[in-house]
Amino acid sequence: MIGTSVPRLDGVSKLTGQVSYTINLQVSRMLHAKILRSKVPHARLLRVDASRALKEPGVVTVLTGAELQRLSRSPYYGPVFRDQPVVGIDRVRYAGDPIAAVAAVDEETAEGALGLIDVELEDLPAVFDPEAALAEGAPVLHGPREGPRYPHTRMDFAVPVAETNICSVYRVDHGDLEQGFREAAHVFEHTFTCPTTQHCPMEPHAAIAQPDADGRLTVWSSTQSPFVVRAQLAELLDWPLSRVRVIAPPLGGGYGAKLFPKTEPIAVCLALLAGRPVKVVLTREEVFLTLTKHAAKVTIRTGVARDGRLLARHARILWDTGAYAENGPRVCKNGGYASLGPYRIPHLKAESYCVYTNKPPAGSFRGFGVSQVAWAGESQMDLIARELGRDPLELRRQNLLQEGDRFHTGDVVHSAGLRECLDRCAAAIGWGQRPGPQDPDRPRGKGLAVIIKSTSTPTVSSATLKLNEDGSVNLFAGTVEIGQGSSTVLPQIVAEELGIPIGHISLGWPDTDVTPYDSMTASSRSTFHMGLALREAAEHLRQQLRTLGADLLEASPEALEVRGGRVVVRGTDRGLAYGEVVRKHFGVGAGSLVAHGTYRTYGLRSRSGDREGPLTSVFWFASAGAAELEVDRQTGHIRVLRYVAAVDAGKALNPLLCEGQVRGSVVMGIGQTFHEELAFVDGQPVNPNLLDYRLPCMLDIPETTEVILVETPHRDGPYGAKGVGEPCVPPVSPAIGNAIADAIGVRLYDLPLTPEKVLRALRDRRSGR
Amino acid sequence: MIGTSVPRLDGVSKLTGQVSYTINLQVSRMLHAKILRSKVPHARLLRVDASRALKEPGVVTVLTGAELQRLSRSPYYGPVFRDQPVVGIDRVRYAGDPIAAVAAVDEETAEGALGLIDVELEDLPAVFDPEAALAEGAPVLHGPREGPRYPHTRMDFAVPVAETNICSVYRVDHGDLEQGFREAAHVFEHTFTCPTTQHCPMEPHAAIAQPDADGRLTVWSSTQSPFVVRAQLAELLDWPLSRVRVIAPPLGGGYGAKLFPKTEPIAVCLALLAGRPVKVVLTREEVFLTLTKHAAKVTIRTGVARDGRLLARHARILWDTGAYAENGPRVCKNGGYASLGPYRIPHLKAESYCVYTNKPPAGSFRGFGVSQVAWAGESQMDLIARELGRDPLELRRQNLLQEGDRFHTGDVVHSAGLRECLDRCAAAIGWGQRPGPQDPDRPRGKGLAVIIKSTSTPTVSSATLKLNEDGSVNLFAGTVEIGQGSSTVLPQIVAEELGIPIGHISLGWPDTDVTPYDSMTASSRSTFHMGLALREAAEHLRQQLRTLGADLLEASPEALEVRGGRVVVRGTDRGLAYGEVVRKHFGVGAGSLVAHGTYRTYGLRSRSGDREGPLTSVFWFASAGAAELEVDRQTGHIRVLRYVAAVDAGKALNPLLCEGQVRGSVVMGIGQTFHEELAFVDGQPVNPNLLDYRLPCMLDIPETTEVILVETPHRDGPYGAKGVGEPCVPPVSPAIGNAIADAIGVRLYDLPLTPEKVLRALRDRRSGR
Repeated sequence: MIGTSVPRLDGVSKLTGQVSYTINLQVSRMLHAKILRSKVPHARLLRVDASRALKEPGVVTVLTGAELQRLSRSPYYGPVFRDQPVVGIDRVRYAGDPIAAVAAVDEETAEGALGLIDVELEDLPAVFDPEAALAEGAPVLHGPREGPRYPHTRMDFAVPVAETNICSVYRVDHGDLEQGFREAAHVFEHTFTCPTTQHCPMEPHAAIAQPDADGRLTVWSSTQSPFVVRAQLAELLDWPLSRVRVIAPPLGGGYGAKLFPKTEPIAVCLALLAGRPVKVVLTREEVFLTLTKHAAKVTIRTGVARDGRLLARHARILWDTGAYAENGPRVCKNGGYASLGPYRIPHLKAESYCVYTNKPPAGSFRGFGVSQVAWAGESQMDLIARELGRDPLELRRQNLLQEGDRFHTGDVVHSAGLRECLDRCAAAIGWGQRPGPQDPDRPRGKGLAVIIKSTSTPTVSSATLKLNEDGSVNLFAGTVEIGQGSSTVLPQIVAEELGIPIGHISLGWPDTDVTPYDSMTASSRSTFHMGLALREAAEHLRQQLRTLGADLLEASPEALEVRGGRVVVRGTDRGLAYGEVVRKHFGVGAGSLVAHGTYRTYGLRSRSGDREGPLTSVFWFASAGAAELEVDRQTGHIRVLRYVAAVDAGKALNPLLCEGQVRGSVVMGIGQTFHEELAFVDGQPVNPNLLDYRLPCMLDIPETTEVILVETPHRDGPYGAKGVGEPCVPPVSPAIGNAIADAIGVRLYDLPLTPEKVLRALRDRRSGR
Repeated sequence: MIGTSVPRLDGVSKLTGQVSYTINLQVSRMLHAKILRSKVPHARLLRVDASRALKEPGVVTVLTGAELQRLSRSPYYGPVFRDQPVVGIDRVRYAGDPIAAVAAVDEETAEGALGLIDVELEDLPAVFDPEAALAEGAPVLHGPREGPRYPHTRMDFAVPVAETNICSVYRVDHGDLEQGFREAAHVFEHTFTCPTTQHCPMEPHAAIAQPDADGRLTVWSSTQSPFVVRAQLAELLDWPLSRVRVIAPPLGGGYGAKLFPKTEPIAVCLALLAGRPVKVVLTREEVFLTLTKHAAKVTIRTGVARDGRLLARHARILWDTGAYAENGPRVCKNGGYASLGPYRIPHLKAESYCVYTNKPPAGSFRGFGVSQVAWAGESQMDLIARELGRDPLELRRQNLLQEGDRFHTGDVVHSAGLRECLDRCAAAIGWGQRPGPQDPDRPRGKGLAVIIKSTSTPTVSSATLKLNEDGSVNLFAGTVEIGQGSSTVLPQIVAEELGIPIGHISLGWPDTDVTPYDSMTASSRSTFHMGLALREAAEHLRQQLRTLGADLLEASPEALEVRGGRVVVRGTDRGLAYGEVVRKHFGVGAGSLVAHGTYRTYGLRSRSGDREGPLTSVFWFASAGAAELEVDRQTGHIRVLRYVAAVDAGKALNPLLCEGQVRGSVVMGIGQTFHEELAFVDGQPVNPNLLDYRLPCMLDIPETTEVILVETPHRDGPYGAKGVGEPCVPPVSPAIGNAIADAIGVRLYDLPLTPEKVLRALRDRRSGR
């Protein structure tokens, strides 16, 4: 089973369009909600009067700030700080900020009633970029805030007490930066930028909230984190967790956009007001206004020895986190230490600032801050190589972190096959060989990039197995099927552990009522964490089978082995199928055994050395990318001829699925590199739709994409496995930027790399600017 | 908590009509099914041609016998024998037997298409009562059958090999019957009858089957036994159990009618043919044709010593089980041994015959065969008392089984407060005092009855508890809320065990994917069996809390106690709330603990003596009833002035709910006594609707009903509890029959006791007939 490309168990339903995504679900007596959003980026809310809307036939209820405050004593939510009201209470902070919501018998009625809500606003000065937001006298978005939302998790970033627009600060500082730069033969400083983009999951955010008359609430949600949604809804309502049930159907794409509550709080408030189920489905425009990927400005200063060793690096990053913190502080932290790159650097410092602006909130995005900083760091590596006359591959090889080295936060690096990823990419792209036939109008170039990435730590995964009386197994795990293939890989692990056919194992939707806790489906953590929980659960089940089998087979448990679906007396043929054990034990031809397993990373510590402390990351992702492309000098259009992506999977449990993840990552990286940018004019989004916001299409993807699965087994991973969901996104942009520079000798600093920017750079170079 | 009348946790939703019964559920793209039923009681199926129906717009698919055989290699189902085809294959065996089913876009279209199915039949001779069915030359309904459906369960009844209409035979034979009758001073023989009746749950049978494209099936069903439904559907399809998910929403009444698959097989077959969800909801007429309560003819011969001791008893019972076995063999067995009554009798024999006829199948009904035989046995006790000039109460007291006595099957009787129930009923009804003011036109009388009843044994219940990070608990148990109050009592038990508020405990719907195995919600077994499973699960949870708490509190597990929602160092205030234990252990502010408990009665044996063997019943129900009534000599109308019902609850965990169960039982008993009869003419039901089939209404119930909860703690029961769901039904008819005899000196032998029968009996007595 392990290492086998089992086809997706949900393949037929996905291919035939029969998946019950949340947007497809209906429940009886369901109302439909629409949200009234602010048209201005910053204003005081003077009056919100829903009385005309409430008179409209078909309108059942309207949620305003006043109603919200009647429903909840703490009507704010957010995964780090509770700074975001369900609907506006006294202020709106971005164009798109919810002011009120209507529940009506159908979507048209709800939509129509939005225009009947009378809103009086007093405009406030607004600020749209982090530098302006940090300037003296800038309008401040939030008053003094309560401490971090989860004081028990390690939030080792600072929160300023003074009223500023700094949402959080993360710093890492090791060695002696000044000394490092003094020792350096060369010092380079460059600034790179990434724009605001959006995750663009094909399924928009959706939720159905169904209250029952006995004081319970069921929520179906397009979420990556049913347990987080449950916790925040329970907190909003001040209800015990057991009375809030969150069910997570398969997700039509998440990429970090659906990690935390989005539509659920509004759906729940409306449903409680109406006493009926309410469904909220965002329009595409609203999706763009709900959560974005952070725009970032990254300045990196690097000191290099004569021989090419990196001696000192200082990174300073401004993250545009928009109007609410959402998961910005964690992105800021993760991007902060990742900004120093996958290299041994004795003297280093990163300063990472998460800054409020009057724009839609930004949060988790596949790669979690690494894309932005890798665009900077890996572009700079090529600039350094060129300046030093070194081969970019060699320069990287010389400085790469190796097994046993310390990462910048102090952790010892284990199982991060950086060198293998890089070398195999280089080999596959034909590094050192000239690109194919050169057309002077369409010069070709090659580029490389390599990254290291952490996984969210500490987290917890638990899983339960139920063995039925025919030997089949129901598996329940909180991992959401978000397209990554968990609904195939998790049963694969159980099939391996128990020696039964994979078709005898069923995995349901995560459901907080019955599924044991799992932190979230994010950070490419599920195979590792949930895989380990499943292995423990399987061992627990085997123990039970041995104990019961010993009784039934009149042998000692130690004399029994559990394999191939049977409990067998070692060295004999005498044994019982699992189902027989259950049927005979319970004596009624039926019954079930329940086994449970948990994996937690809390308490794990860095394994040795002077900087011992809690782990930054329970495992490390390594990934490299290499591109060969041609640049059309007339149009600025870039055609990617070949792309090679390598990732260290630890062990590829299902190579087909791993490859699918990597191919998806490359496509996403292509979009971020060439096309995507959510543009604003005076805080107003100008292209929040899929006509004007350009996602990559089939014509944009590389002519050939090669996937390399490196396998550096992780000592703790299930069968050595780690995760592969996201680390192949970040290398795409710098590999391409480097290939462009190789092709035309022009360096681009600002994503996306549009034909206009290419042409302008060519023109600037010709004109000597 | 225990012994407290906690109001129903589902009370508001029930009172306000907001319960999601299966009939209320909808799923997307759902089709609606209608069933074509045989109009004749017995025929060979020559041709079923659905081609015209399939051409009808809106008709999606038609299930015929031929399609059925393509879908399933073993297209029969049934809880004891698999003798019932999903739709007719080669024969139909009763007027109402399904021939085909249509799935269409709405109910009207499906209904309309039934008339377009061309059916060719060849009538066969039919037989409508057990005696005729047993006669030489009677048409035989079934060919040779396979053995009992569940060979592993104890089915100690005989199945004839020859082709007869005997479905099963149960015999109990102890002592020397002939000797007993020889020693007797008096021998009495009487025959009593009960008609076919129906359960009449307010919610008709309903099911929705939803196939998915990946080879799984979800079924929402109005069932008392989701695990049995799952097993039979999986067997029908030859699928692993893990791929069939059965969810049991709250039930709008079951009473035994919904114990085994009914609408589910048709819904599933249609759904698989259509590739879409299909809903089947029976009409009231179809409910009457789907399962009935057995008509029975009970002949009891009793030999009594001069001093009133019962010496010998011989019971012979014919059960009219209709066209398919369904649960008839178990009713036949249970009614068989119950026919000998709650008395010490040294010489006894019961012969109980379950007989096929061309009528709707009969099966489990609240009281499970005891009502029919108690009507006979407890009526005869009064006849004996009258004949011997003894007080009926005294005669019963003299002969009642007592603690430590053997029941007729050999079990030792424990915790069956027969004497207490009887005495307290007698006291409450004012036994020995003349009834109130006598009007010669409306004479009054009093009557008593007492019964003993077994519970289904062996069975299994399992339960799981999930402790959340705020200390709240999700409980999952396979017990279906069928109105009995399990959704309140089960949380009560958990609240007691864990010392947390009941509002912090939530119980979901049984769902075979996630709920551990439970045999069924029947036989008043849930409080006892599931209660014990929950206590074990709670102990398992407390162990985990102690282990984790020891680590966190730096104390030994033995030094800790778990109480009042906290883990505390014994003798100190130092401790942690449950939620704190979870949060601190997992270190991420969240997490869950999962605990599991099981109770099984398999392997339990009768506790002592010469007839040791598997238990007949893990506990015994005792119940008595007493009625005072007046008979209108002009109209034959009977007015029940007072009814007293006593039941030995062992321990009433929630007295309010127990009382509700008893009051419901009395109303049901009143219906069975005075009104209910599903009448047939030549095998055709003549009153299968709620206008012509008379259920008791508010005007029919006793003017006052008194409920007495006797508490004889059971040594194994949770807090001493047993069950109270059904034992108060059987005494109603004989207590009333005895009161009528007391009032007017006339004995009635045949239920229901209609005014016509009363008048005819009065007339016959006057005319000396």
